[in-house]
Amino acid sequence: MQLLTFRTSDGGTLPGRVVDPETAERTLTDALDSGDVASAVFSIHPITVAGVRDVGDLLRHDDWRELASARPGEPVEITGSDIAPVIPRPGKILCTGLNYADHITEMGHELPDVPTLFAKFPDALTGPFDRVIVPTANAGALDFEGELAVIIGRHVPLGEAPDTATAETAIAGYAVFDDFTMRDLQYRTAQWLQGKNLASASGFGPWLTTGDEFNPSGATLVTRVNGVEKQHANIRELVFDPAALVQFITTFIDLHPGDVIATGTSGGVGWARSPRQMLTDGDTVTVEISGLGGISNRIEIR
Amino acid sequence: MQLLTFRTSDGGTLPGRVVDPETAERTLTDALDSGDVASAVFSIHPITVAGVRDVGDLLRHDDWRELASARPGEPVEITGSDIAPVIPRPGKILCTGLNYADHITEMGHELPDVPTLFAKFPDALTGPFDRVIVPTANAGALDFEGELAVIIGRHVPLGEAPDTATAETAIAGYAVFDDFTMRDLQYRTAQWLQGKNLASASGFGPWLTTGDEFNPSGATLVTRVNGVEKQHANIRELVFDPAALVQFITTFIDLHPGDVIATGTSGGVGWARSPRQMLTDGDTVTVEISGLGGISNRIEIR
Repeated sequence: MQLLTFRTSDGGTLPGRVVDPETAERTLTDALDSGDVASAVFSIHPITVAGVRDVGDLLRHDDWRELASARPGEPVEITGSDIAPVIPRPGKILCTGLNYADHITEMGHELPDVPTLFAKFPDALTGPFDRVIVPTANAGALDFEGELAVIIGRHVPLGEAPDTATAETAIAGYAVFDDFTMRDLQYRTAQWLQGKNLASASGFGPWLTTGDEFNPSGATLVTRVNGVEKQHANIRELVFDPAALVQFITTFIDLHPGDVIATGTSGGVGWARSPRQMLTDGDTVTVEISGLGGISNRIEIR
Repeated sequence: MQLLTFRTSDGGTLPGRVVDPETAERTLTDALDSGDVASAVFSIHPITVAGVRDVGDLLRHDDWRELASARPGEPVEITGSDIAPVIPRPGKILCTGLNYADHITEMGHELPDVPTLFAKFPDALTGPFDRVIVPTANAGALDFEGELAVIIGRHVPLGEAPDTATAETAIAGYAVFDDFTMRDLQYRTAQWLQGKNLASASGFGPWLTTGDEFNPSGATLVTRVNGVEKQHANIRELVFDPAALVQFITTFIDLHPGDVIATGTSGGVGWARSPRQMLTDGDTVTVEISGLGGISNRIEIR
């Protein structure tokens, strides 16, 4: 099952279920190849539940799978530009730094015993096909980080110390994430937060694929800039896999439905290249994960 | 005007306005001295506005001052244990590291050109007089950080580059904050997040005092452990004051009503003492700021 959050004509959002995942994925692949996803058309079933405005709200209902499977009416057609961040307002977004062996090496670090975690705020998210507007003052060292995002589907209390199977059942599904980064701001203090939180810059979507339909350990992550491949990784290479991250995080804080864990990026980022390859005005960053679709954001520096 | 969020008998919360701030502050001071704030009684006017469950919701209404000033009915009495974090679910909590010259020096750093920022998640907050339950595994190096918290009252878009006066008008008010820290977790990776986000551990309150009634530059911050003074600072010593933090943060991300900026702690934390003085089971941490009242949280290790 593929769930997305789409923008409605009244300025709000609603959750929807993709009518035919195979057709949607083919449409998406063709549109990513052509470079125009904003006008690609997708057919969805809107999910209408009182008080539920997006996939995050939906996941807070214990019976979200049943609610999402119901067909309240005719399918509707939306375009890529109608698709919002799949969880627009996560209760928290935990990002993992340094979680692929090759990226750890290229950034000059040792392999870790525990994950390195930092936060992204909901205000930093943007839709999977939105343009990213960057103020000139912040455009000195723009970089991409293609990532697998894990979306939580039920409450895991602090200290429950779930085993791997339990941790996996807490995961509602997966989506594609660009941990958009301003490297100069990231490194001007010891804490990365300010370089990781440009407003409306981190693409997230296009849809949540439920855990029963996606096996992270067999999937491939590919990031392209203007069609040229920059990152190519197998998710299997993660030092801390999704279940391990759920286990680790819940040693100090609860996880709730709609919370998001970005699992970290692989080797190949622009900052680690020699010479460095920073993003510039007009560049398009595309991140694809086999089985999850892809996101594509064009950068405009103003 | 003093605004707080209180717990209702149905398991929810509502915002309220303190009926008589002078009486409330005297009650609070006496209760902090006696060590029992949980059963101290405060008189408030509940603020009943459709869809508004706490002070954060209230601030999202442009006319929040008028809504809060209205008197819909008789005052009600609540106890200290009824008081929730003043903003229970901030859209974001930006914490400032290293913002008092003496604390910067004691932690072994140089005076900074820009603020160091990291995040606390809403799930890490607790009420101003709640007990803090710490799992034994996380109790190796518990520390307090008494801080002034700034609460935002209107939207400041990224890049608006507000001048100091404009930045000040974006501040709804101030409250007291304990940036509760697990030092061992803070330093086991390069990013502090995991040491700063123990579930339900960072006291925040007891109420928001509006900006027209509080001048940060003349206030004194005092932190005590079991009644013994550990931190004593003048807010005037902040390297980056509240307006400067608003100005800096909005160079990369928007601020919204209900967002919180914790302004950093002063010298005197347990970790920097020689020998180190970490918190243990049964310790009570009290943080007071003149003009804002105080918070007091007892630690239980389980």
